[in-house]
Amino acid sequence: MGRVTVRRRVLRVREGVPSHRADTLAAEEPMEIRVGGRPLTVTMRTPGDDFDLATGFLVSEGVVHTAEDVSGIRYCSGATADGGNTYNVVDIGLAPGVAAPDASLERNFYTTSSCGLCGKASLDAVRTTARWSVADDPLRISPELLTSLPDKLRAAQRVFDSTGGLHAAGLFGSDGDMLCLREDVGRHNAVDKVVGHALRSGLLPLRGTVLMVSGRASFELVQKAVMAGIPTLAAVSAPSSLAVDLAAESGLTLVGFLRGESMNVYTGEERLEPQSVV
Amino acid sequence: MGRVTVRRRVLRVREGVPSHRADTLAAEEPMEIRVGGRPLTVTMRTPGDDFDLATGFLVSEGVVHTAEDVSGIRYCSGATADGGNTYNVVDIGLAPGVAAPDASLERNFYTTSSCGLCGKASLDAVRTTARWSVADDPLRISPELLTSLPDKLRAAQRVFDSTGGLHAAGLFGSDGDMLCLREDVGRHNAVDKVVGHALRSGLLPLRGTVLMVSGRASFELVQKAVMAGIPTLAAVSAPSSLAVDLAAESGLTLVGFLRGESMNVYTGEERLEPQSVV
Repeated sequence: MGRVTVRRRVLRVREGVPSHRADTLAAEEPMEIRVGGRPLTVTMRTPGDDFDLATGFLVSEGVVHTAEDVSGIRYCSGATADGGNTYNVVDIGLAPGVAAPDASLERNFYTTSSCGLCGKASLDAVRTTARWSVADDPLRISPELLTSLPDKLRAAQRVFDSTGGLHAAGLFGSDGDMLCLREDVGRHNAVDKVVGHALRSGLLPLRGTVLMVSGRASFELVQKAVMAGIPTLAAVSAPSSLAVDLAAESGLTLVGFLRGESMNVYTGEERLEPQSVV
Repeated sequence: MGRVTVRRRVLRVREGVPSHRADTLAAEEPMEIRVGGRPLTVTMRTPGDDFDLATGFLVSEGVVHTAEDVSGIRYCSGATADGGNTYNVVDIGLAPGVAAPDASLERNFYTTSSCGLCGKASLDAVRTTARWSVADDPLRISPELLTSLPDKLRAAQRVFDSTGGLHAAGLFGSDGDMLCLREDVGRHNAVDKVVGHALRSGLLPLRGTVLMVSGRASFELVQKAVMAGIPTLAAVSAPSSLAVDLAAESGLTLVGFLRGESMNVYTGEERLEPQSVV
């Protein structure tokens, strides 16, 4: 596609001294996800790995669980008045027997009809939708392996250094090897791209893996990890309260502020290999 | 409300040495926005300033433009089965003559029916919806004023230092005085809270102001600034390509990487006071 970055002229001011020069920006464009031809949602994303993004989104929402649940993926032509293809509309076909999501899908994880809108209801919604449990994943990891991940993530990022504008999500095996890296202007999109790639490669559930993200850990990112069967989520920055709540309820190991030789382990510390705790 | 932060027990590892201690997290809970009793959207937000958030969201979407467009705001009681109030459902009443948004409102800015889904269509949607123009705002600012803003924003943040998990949005006058600060786990929510506060104070359009955000500048944040009549948006980190496109088309001054004595001015550099450019 070649649209991951865009060059623009910019006025730079460095230590008070202005100059004009070219700058590289992270590309952002809207993408519509359709299921069986019906529009489902629109997300602002960085073009590239669009099929991974679309399928990963459907995994996160509990619509598909294996590669066989998807019968086909394509860009919709005829999206413009002149019949052109903007490569911004992706249509996913579902296999026979796979239920299509309803139009109010975006709210499935936030509320249920049986009780009021609150954090607890959001946790319940994930529990009732998840196909796999991460609580029984026997993964054990050392703190040293975890502290090696941020550098590996950064080294693998092709775009971040030139734009400073992309979030990254990296999937690692229990030996610390990187299995997949995806980048996007949106954190949630980067994770969906990783999960969609894994689904299309027949790798779900992602037992024994660690997902590392470049930013913060929100409820939504923990939800995506749980739905993909990933037992450990590590973030460079802080988690939110509801992210910690969902991780605790799901049996996911949640690590935040993973920088240098330091980290905070918010839940599931039993997965960290034996160490003497002060 | 007292729910902006939450305390949790955490395993800290510092330079390889583990210890248990209490940690402060940024609170995250779902909030549903209703208009005239009809559910419109659900956002994950940090509780607090909820009425500002709900009204600011409606400004961003082009539903309301002045304080008089809103007839009333309240938390919905009876949101739970036992008739309790979760303080997570906010209902906004519109004044007579103000058109209610339709259910597909979330997509208004991403696509139009007349052409294909693309960045250009997203820009067109903002232009046709904006009530005010920021292009003719006579604001002039010095680079020195801009470089003073990040420290002011940080100094004013009450929560960030203790959790590291909140985004901030600060509104400044042309003299560099802070007019309003709001924080949230979501960048877009922090901006909506600032804009909603301004609307409810009768201050829209926000001519002659600068909006400063702690993170990156996406299309969505530029859209919110334009819809509120804010002529200058400054961000600590990078803008996306579509953010720069919308700023250029709207006549908004967009500043990124505002750190120390340095910045990148992506659009609207004519608002920076005379300086010799190399």
